Amino acid sequence: MAEPSSEIERPRAGILLTGSELVTGAISDANGPWLARELGALGFDVVHTVIAGDRPDDLRASLDFLVTEGCVLIVTSGGLGPTADDLTAEVVAEFAGVELVLDEEVRSHIEARIAGWARRSGFAGPALDAATRKQAMVPVGATVLPPTGTAPGLVVERPGGPLVVVLPGPPRELRGMWPSAVAAAPVRALLDGVAAPQELHLRFYGTPESEIAHTLADLDTTGVEVTTCLRRSELEVDLRPRPGAEERAQALHAAIIAAHGKRLISADGSTTDELVAKALLDRGWTVATGESCTGGMLASRLVDRAGSSAYVAGGVVAYSNEAKTALLGVPAEMIAEHGAVSPQVARALADGARDRFGADVGVGITGVAGPGGGTEAKPVGFVCFCVTSSDGQVIGRELTLPGERQDIRERATDTAMHMLLRVTGALPGRD
Amino acid sequence: MAEPSSEIERPRAGILLTGSELVTGAISDANGPWLARELGALGFDVVHTVIAGDRPDDLRASLDFLVTEGCVLIVTSGGLGPTADDLTAEVVAEFAGVELVLDEEVRSHIEARIAGWARRSGFAGPALDAATRKQAMVPVGATVLPPTGTAPGLVVERPGGPLVVVLPGPPRELRGMWPSAVAAAPVRALLDGVAAPQELHLRFYGTPESEIAHTLADLDTTGVEVTTCLRRSELEVDLRPRPGAEERAQALHAAIIAAHGKRLISADGSTTDELVAKALLDRGWTVATGESCTGGMLASRLVDRAGSSAYVAGGVVAYSNEAKTALLGVPAEMIAEHGAVSPQVARALADGARDRFGADVGVGITGVAGPGGGTEAKPVGFVCFCVTSSDGQVIGRELTLPGERQDIRERATDTAMHMLLRVTGALPGRD
Repeated sequence: MAEPSSEIERPRAGILLTGSELVTGAISDANGPWLARELGALGFDVVHTVIAGDRPDDLRASLDFLVTEGCVLIVTSGGLGPTADDLTAEVVAEFAGVELVLDEEVRSHIEARIAGWARRSGFAGPALDAATRKQAMVPVGATVLPPTGTAPGLVVERPGGPLVVVLPGPPRELRGMWPSAVAAAPVRALLDGVAAPQELHLRFYGTPESEIAHTLADLDTTGVEVTTCLRRSELEVDLRPRPGAEERAQALHAAIIAAHGKRLISADGSTTDELVAKALLDRGWTVATGESCTGGMLASRLVDRAGSSAYVAGGVVAYSNEAKTALLGVPAEMIAEHGAVSPQVARALADGARDRFGADVGVGITGVAGPGGGTEAKPVGFVCFCVTSSDGQVIGRELTLPGERQDIRERATDTAMHMLLRVTGALPGRD
Repeated sequence: MAEPSSEIERPRAGILLTGSELVTGAISDANGPWLARELGALGFDVVHTVIAGDRPDDLRASLDFLVTEGCVLIVTSGGLGPTADDLTAEVVAEFAGVELVLDEEVRSHIEARIAGWARRSGFAGPALDAATRKQAMVPVGATVLPPTGTAPGLVVERPGGPLVVVLPGPPRELRGMWPSAVAAAPVRALLDGVAAPQELHLRFYGTPESEIAHTLADLDTTGVEVTTCLRRSELEVDLRPRPGAEERAQALHAAIIAAHGKRLISADGSTTDELVAKALLDRGWTVATGESCTGGMLASRLVDRAGSSAYVAGGVVAYSNEAKTALLGVPAEMIAEHGAVSPQVARALADGARDRFGADVGVGITGVAGPGGGTEAKPVGFVCFCVTSSDGQVIGRELTLPGERQDIRERATDTAMHMLLRVTGALPGRD
């Protein structure tokens, strides 16, 4: 530490995700990363995310662990439902040393909310009444956050800390409740004096992690946490300065760009998908897709973004040879001569999509996603790409992508997104 | 506990996912649920998954927490890369009380593996040599698992336990290395005498959790952990008996089916996607899609499965009205009269897809995914579905789905999959 006095640690926070279906891997959590980003943006240093099943001892042990790890704030998700395995309110009450009481206001709120559904579905009755009552039990003294589904959220102050924010498990309910959690007085009090961090981000295409490490080895990184993360073909570099080390982070950011700018995708954290959307809108271009092995994954990824109807014309999933010919005009003789997986057919898919949808840019993808269908010349993972545009550009690629069926399809979709970005002319690097 | 002597606890295991990019939420973990399912299938009781950033103290504290939670096995993922923030081998060595040493065999293995790429990319040199050397440092006495990427995995025995299995972070590498981890002698020794569990699963469509709770309230669940999990419109019920309680789990399984069979999707854990694939294959049917708001998500989901070319003919993403008419033959007057989001257009999309692709089943989806485009009559979330088949079935639905754009698109895709399952006649329930 060169200047320990000028750098302040950020307050530590922890996330506890509850649910036996999470701990057994039956489902994948969607709340942890979202909460971590929100807490980071508020200025907290998220130390751990812990998953625990619906067992009181495991939940309690997780809370205690986060306390020993110095967390002043713990956010929990899940375990607020109507069944006996929903234990979070009970365990958090015990953790804070208070009793649970029935909140009449919450009870009638839930009752009113589900009344229509209960009647229509025929599920009204004692089971539902018991469920409603259970969901209305809150720790004494807790701040109740209005339900966005049926269960209310809670802000519970443990004497001596930490503060515990208890949120429901369904991602939509959790995200809907978050603003009222952040606005709750005890949370506001904790946030008082916490500065939002000035993180910096970089994204590169095809740069290995070792190169970033080599660049950093000669630089002073005191007070700046630098993390690199390889996501398929993209490398993400995040720089997180402690309060006081912001200028050093800026200098490191500039130094990394100077050394690796050729492969830069973005210097501000923008994703390829954001850049593609912006570039197409800026140019007033529409895009159409002709997909074989990716089977609609590229179209779906383009449509993911709100407002995409302004630049997505549509697409065809032409899985069979007949469909390639009938819907996108790929000549049957071309398929017979070169094979369905060939640069020629990728080009014809791109042109066909552009033509049939009247779009400015066409993307063609054809490949062997596996596990069957591979040959020596065209093994599993072999994919041909082509992007053509109304201004006369034709960009083709042939790659043998690693991994299993799902990997290959995702990597192929990534590659097509990069090629789309290149054809718009919006790539900052020169490669 | 009615019969405590006949029920044995399963050995406890913990998962530690490392990486600052995970703890900050920059990326979502893909290894935790996969590892949890594998460990569960081997007979372990997974108690916690913990995420920790790339800081030695946080990693060590996580290992210590899993020890206090009684874990006899800890599986870690990540932190084996070439950069300074990759610390797992070092921290695990210290945890086990041993030194790190350079393993010459591993070093030359990595060197050989990357030689071609290093030459072609121009990245050969001192940075790469240092990275290779770092990745070849292993704890004294550890079992080295051959690299599936560049980094080797490790099995490290701590005197007095637990056993630590150290795996790389990239999911493909981790999954590829898992068989050799399970086959390693110390892991085999731990598994000796652990029986694979006999879990039972149920899946329902549209059944609320409170109904399952109500059914269970009258039954003896001793020794059987019952968890319910609502995933969008499907409710999953898992029954996990401790050794000795298998028969009770069978009885509970039968009792839940007896009470809620009308809405049963499957009684053996089969997913809707598996059932749709099997039903289409069994009937020798092919399917074609005409999608608007889902934008290829249904086609992509159908193509996700290996062998899907046997029953997926293809699909059209007809986002614009022009595309609906030009590619799927939806009459322009129909769109003008009823609107693009209407039961009539959903039907025409289904018929058009079936016709253009020469398929047996056609699925049409048109809706308002939002955030813009909603009206009072057709709000955001309003989606029209139609499935038609060559044997004359026509199933239509109109729903207003909750949530944001992504939720709506996913729920719409779910609904379409259910309708597909119904049209094949493969639903066990009567609803």
